[in-house]
Amino acid sequence: MQLTVLGCHSATPRVNAYPTSQYLEINNRHFLIDCGEGTQRQMRKYKVGFSKIDHIFISHLHGDHFFGLVGLIATLGILNREKELHIYGPKGIKEVTTLQLKFSKTWTKYAIVFHELTSTESELIFEDNKVSVRTIPLNHRVYTNGFLFTEKAKPRKLHIENIQQYDEIETCDFHHIKAGKDFVLSTGEIVSNDELTIDPPKPLSFAFCSDTAYKPSIIPIIKNVDLLYHEATFLKDREDLCEKTKHSTAEQAASIASQANAGKLIIGHYSNRYKNIDDFKAEAQTVFNNTELAEVGKRYTTDAFPVEILN
Amino acid sequence: MQLTVLGCHSATPRVNAYPTSQYLEINNRHFLIDCGEGTQRQMRKYKVGFSKIDHIFISHLHGDHFFGLVGLIATLGILNREKELHIYGPKGIKEVTTLQLKFSKTWTKYAIVFHELTSTESELIFEDNKVSVRTIPLNHRVYTNGFLFTEKAKPRKLHIENIQQYDEIETCDFHHIKAGKDFVLSTGEIVSNDELTIDPPKPLSFAFCSDTAYKPSIIPIIKNVDLLYHEATFLKDREDLCEKTKHSTAEQAASIASQANAGKLIIGHYSNRYKNIDDFKAEAQTVFNNTELAEVGKRYTTDAFPVEILN
Repeated sequence: MQLTVLGCHSATPRVNAYPTSQYLEINNRHFLIDCGEGTQRQMRKYKVGFSKIDHIFISHLHGDHFFGLVGLIATLGILNREKELHIYGPKGIKEVTTLQLKFSKTWTKYAIVFHELTSTESELIFEDNKVSVRTIPLNHRVYTNGFLFTEKAKPRKLHIENIQQYDEIETCDFHHIKAGKDFVLSTGEIVSNDELTIDPPKPLSFAFCSDTAYKPSIIPIIKNVDLLYHEATFLKDREDLCEKTKHSTAEQAASIASQANAGKLIIGHYSNRYKNIDDFKAEAQTVFNNTELAEVGKRYTTDAFPVEILN
Repeated sequence: MQLTVLGCHSATPRVNAYPTSQYLEINNRHFLIDCGEGTQRQMRKYKVGFSKIDHIFISHLHGDHFFGLVGLIATLGILNREKELHIYGPKGIKEVTTLQLKFSKTWTKYAIVFHELTSTESELIFEDNKVSVRTIPLNHRVYTNGFLFTEKAKPRKLHIENIQQYDEIETCDFHHIKAGKDFVLSTGEIVSNDELTIDPPKPLSFAFCSDTAYKPSIIPIIKNVDLLYHEATFLKDREDLCEKTKHSTAEQAASIASQANAGKLIIGHYSNRYKNIDDFKAEAQTVFNNTELAEVGKRYTTDAFPVEILN
């Protein structure tokens, strides 16, 4: 599982400040989360394969989270995409997107399937044999969801050395053994699955929570998440602005991470008013030590440090 | 009069290729022409003052010419703009823009005045005491206009040395002299205006023609224009694609410049298929020598060479 930050600032794009967009690779699935203006440029810069993206998740319809969507859709058409594209976002996203395509007479050859969200309860919105995605209802000025991405439990791994002790076990049996079954020898003796397999890697999870005021009621949804992105638009000196604009401080983001027992916290969506984003990290770490700053062009895993993507 | 190229490539934005947008300063007026995705970032990069822009001209509703408009409108709101913004473009531009603002609940404090265009004849769409703007009906796959920006005739300049020969002429008389009037001395003798003034600088004009197939019927509209931007999407080896997509070759752009007796031609809107844009210049110069390539971050005047903007 790795997360690439394509944009992590709030409000207005600037020369080196792109609005929210993230690219998540999880268990061989590839998701785009939010799509502010300029996202397609950032995808090219950081070598995110356009054809890999089949599912785009939009948290809310503020411009800094979706004004890049229609341009990306048009570009996928120019790139001769043919497979379906699924877009998940608030009700209205279909109308606003298709109207733009209508006026520009940009008819895509590929089908766009809109999944419009209206529920204020967490719901399962995507599931296949690799990953499930649930909404995380947030508290912002417009209808907003975060998203929880969770790997499906992986099959057990074969303990090849132990298996080789038994001549009777053949390659065609591996499928059952990986699925957790014991093996019955011709003598009737049962070889326990524990002896033949080792535990698979723990399924990982990532929660994206932006934009939102401090909302501790999301904690049961994201409990024990491995990687948590939570917005931190302000420092606690401007908690009054959080109240007014429905955003969070770095301390509040860290408090959510701590209460949810998150493995690691990434914060972002910094207000332009702050010159030094290190202050966000310092504030968050007073509450939750394993905090990283979201930075454009960095790739995050559950490992200790983000990797800078060369370009 | 100077023109800053903010973006000059066709179709899809890439890391160092921005879709069409130009910033024109003419006789103390400041106009934005087209607004592809990323234009506001480019405006910041090349230090175009956001508050100076009161009029935005959109040639047509293909994404590479207007997907950056709504983001710019939202940003002007965040920057606390209060004065009116005028937007000129094809019918539909109001609906598509306001729907996006509605869903994002981005109500601007400033008024947006939409001037929706439907005529297929050249028409005057803006005029004040400094500049007039006319449409140039073009031939593209959707309804498209170019724009002709013309300086108003400037007042005559005072010939201070000659004026000082006449004690009777006072500062308060300058207004009439600049307007072209002769001066009557107390003796009844008439001093000709020719003696008291010198010719003002010639009013300049700029024509923006993109996107369009070769359309020689525009020549009477742009006759003797000082600076002509004309799209050149393809080289003449792919004239077949021009036919199909309603674009021009570099040679066709140059032919328009030559027939219109333009002072200088700037070409752009290069297709991604070409690696070396110098080939466009070479092709155009076989027909019209005074041709420059549009390049992002360069500023063009009627002088010989464009100036690179440092940033």
